[in-house]
Amino acid sequence: MRKLHLNAFLMGVGHHEAAWRTAGADPSRVTDIRHYQELAQIAERGKLDSVFLADSLSFWGDIKYHTLGGLEPVTTLAAMAAVTEHVGLIGTVSTTYNEPFNVARKFASLDHISHGRAGWNIVTSAFESEARNFGGDLPPHAARYVRATEFVDVVTKLWDSWADDAIVADQDQGIYADKEKVRAVDHKGHLFKVHGPLNIPRPPQGRPLLVQAGSSEDGKEFAARYAEAVFTAQPVIYSALAFYADFKGRLAKYGRDRDDVAILPGLSPIIGSTEAEAARLQEELGALVVPESALGALSDVLGVDLTDHPLDEPLPEIPGVNEGQRSRAGVVVAMAKREGLTVRQLLSRLAGNRGHRVVAGTPERIADEIEEWFTKGAADGFNVMPPTLPGGLEDFVDHVVPELQRRGLFRTEYDGTTLRENFGFARPAVAHA
Amino acid sequence: MRKLHLNAFLMGVGHHEAAWRTAGADPSRVTDIRHYQELAQIAERGKLDSVFLADSLSFWGDIKYHTLGGLEPVTTLAAMAAVTEHVGLIGTVSTTYNEPFNVARKFASLDHISHGRAGWNIVTSAFESEARNFGGDLPPHAARYVRATEFVDVVTKLWDSWADDAIVADQDQGIYADKEKVRAVDHKGHLFKVHGPLNIPRPPQGRPLLVQAGSSEDGKEFAARYAEAVFTAQPVIYSALAFYADFKGRLAKYGRDRDDVAILPGLSPIIGSTEAEAARLQEELGALVVPESALGALSDVLGVDLTDHPLDEPLPEIPGVNEGQRSRAGVVVAMAKREGLTVRQLLSRLAGNRGHRVVAGTPERIADEIEEWFTKGAADGFNVMPPTLPGGLEDFVDHVVPELQRRGLFRTEYDGTTLRENFGFARPAVAHA
Repeated sequence: MRKLHLNAFLMGVGHHEAAWRTAGADPSRVTDIRHYQELAQIAERGKLDSVFLADSLSFWGDIKYHTLGGLEPVTTLAAMAAVTEHVGLIGTVSTTYNEPFNVARKFASLDHISHGRAGWNIVTSAFESEARNFGGDLPPHAARYVRATEFVDVVTKLWDSWADDAIVADQDQGIYADKEKVRAVDHKGHLFKVHGPLNIPRPPQGRPLLVQAGSSEDGKEFAARYAEAVFTAQPVIYSALAFYADFKGRLAKYGRDRDDVAILPGLSPIIGSTEAEAARLQEELGALVVPESALGALSDVLGVDLTDHPLDEPLPEIPGVNEGQRSRAGVVVAMAKREGLTVRQLLSRLAGNRGHRVVAGTPERIADEIEEWFTKGAADGFNVMPPTLPGGLEDFVDHVVPELQRRGLFRTEYDGTTLRENFGFARPAVAHA
Repeated sequence: MRKLHLNAFLMGVGHHEAAWRTAGADPSRVTDIRHYQELAQIAERGKLDSVFLADSLSFWGDIKYHTLGGLEPVTTLAAMAAVTEHVGLIGTVSTTYNEPFNVARKFASLDHISHGRAGWNIVTSAFESEARNFGGDLPPHAARYVRATEFVDVVTKLWDSWADDAIVADQDQGIYADKEKVRAVDHKGHLFKVHGPLNIPRPPQGRPLLVQAGSSEDGKEFAARYAEAVFTAQPVIYSALAFYADFKGRLAKYGRDRDDVAILPGLSPIIGSTEAEAARLQEELGALVVPESALGALSDVLGVDLTDHPLDEPLPEIPGVNEGQRSRAGVVVAMAKREGLTVRQLLSRLAGNRGHRVVAGTPERIADEIEEWFTKGAADGFNVMPPTLPGGLEDFVDHVVPELQRRGLFRTEYDGTTLRENFGFARPAVAHA
């Protein structure tokens, strides 16, 4: 039987860009490790599969208005591991600006530190501003995926370079490891030459969980080949159903089953004890958005300067944006047209969801939505994006999760101790040549 | 008044290569985060300045005999930060196989996570086996230091890219940061182009502590320019006095004072409640060394195959090794000659110290040695290398530290909360151009 999976996507003091301005919000928590440790503990209290930290290697917005500049994901997850026992720990690391040996090692280490709870969200770093922190020009999209493919290949070889029983630790004879079972990988590819072995024993999970969120054609093929969990932005169930069917259909050609990958659309739940309270909360958050800030960000996304465009009129025609394409610009333009939004309304929407599904309502209403998407085959679970943190995650864990448990949709206890066990995946065997 | 500084150099289950074979040793602790967390807590109980994790990007010995393959330092230190409050956390990261933006970020993050306790031990990765994990050929020594120099320059610029008061967090106006105070570094050097700013606020210490251990001419000049703590291997006080005087003399040309850098020779204390007990412990450890293993390692160091050389005879003439040079081979040959050691005796010595000072004796005897080196100007403190862990560190903290405190040589309480405060260094101001 399919099981529902829930991941808590943690971002500073909340996913809503105005979260830090709400009453009671403490913006200094953005760099406070206790904040992230508490969030992991809240997620674990809710029996969530995992927590997830996104990343970029430059600002993705305007520091004047946005609480940018948080902690680095993998160091943060290591400190979160120290105060939790069950919840999975997924961190984002780029294949474009790192070396496979270092990344293999970092996640193997996190997997040992957390006793098998590490996951790697693989990104290729699409911003020009990131490229400028690493020497200059952004490699083309396709080249980034070529590198990512060989990169992941090398990383998995390195994780497999120690057999599970390589360590003998024979104290009497003084033999620590069986050298036949700690093997060079001797990778000689187009982009990387890596001899190995990794200088860290095989991770407890065999391989940390591989996660991906690409929505381009290259991204989906890459995910179909490697990913075990996929994050995706789907604002409505129709697009989610299409994405789900399309993606699951790509797996067979890589020799994989439909159940080998969990598809987790983003879901931003705005929770109230009544519908009216939830709607009011959503309004309040929207009203705290600084239009100047949001307009600048929207201009960047659409590639058109909108800073002089009247806020209470619809979006103008945006040249060169095809609504059918999977780009962020296409998604935004399509949403504005579909819902007949003024620019002000569009900004308010985007502030809270960045193209993801937003549901404002009671815990029952949010559970209904989750149940519908899950049972209709639009999702295997959700990447939960609380508008405010820690409050929004606490509300989800204390009110939505119990409702899902009452309906028999979500676990009431952890089944195992590793992230793979949370997702129901077997531990991979060593793939020795 | 000069103050004595003590750093605990942690390495698996002990610095002695046979530590894992001793009664009660648990080799599985090499990858057990609780082991490292306990060691940090023991160091903190002893009011030590810091703990330190070395690193290499390949095995530095034979996995058949050695407990190689531990955790990655920075993830480990992040998890150690979670269970301690005062002890400094120094991790090794290579400038040859990383990018400055990533390294600046990793240590800034560790510094935030630990509330100002991060230190970076800067290495340039001298092994051919490391180069083979990153594409191939080892860059020449001088080229590695040229890279290290520009690398550290970029990293410190990135740490300085946010002014200390850059975050405004004006919730009423919706202004998070003063953009004038978060500035691009716009570095365009011979090797790196890095635009910046760093996407993480200025570290609590301003800059994490810079540590170095190079003993070559290039290494010492590099350290004289940047390092705030220097680790060094000095088997006897004469060499330590010479190193200390030479190194302190190099500081003026970089506009630095003698007190701006703490010189910490390695010290491996073999502690017994009597001299006889300590000697017996040293014997027992030496007897557990597998000669075949040690002979292989010595052959590698000297560049000569010694595996058929009789163990109970002196070292043969080693062609091409100049005893006066600062290389490891030169140090080893000089020590063997000076002390008239057979190969077996030499192997036993090297097993326990890798060229560092070893003192076997009572806590008073070890405190005498520390006092002598400190007061005579051979050291500002010590990089303590317990032969076994956790036992050797517990003995040091419970017996040697109290003796040093009784003599008024070592702190009885922490003065501040950051690593810089432990070392008595001021917080650096932002160096804006």
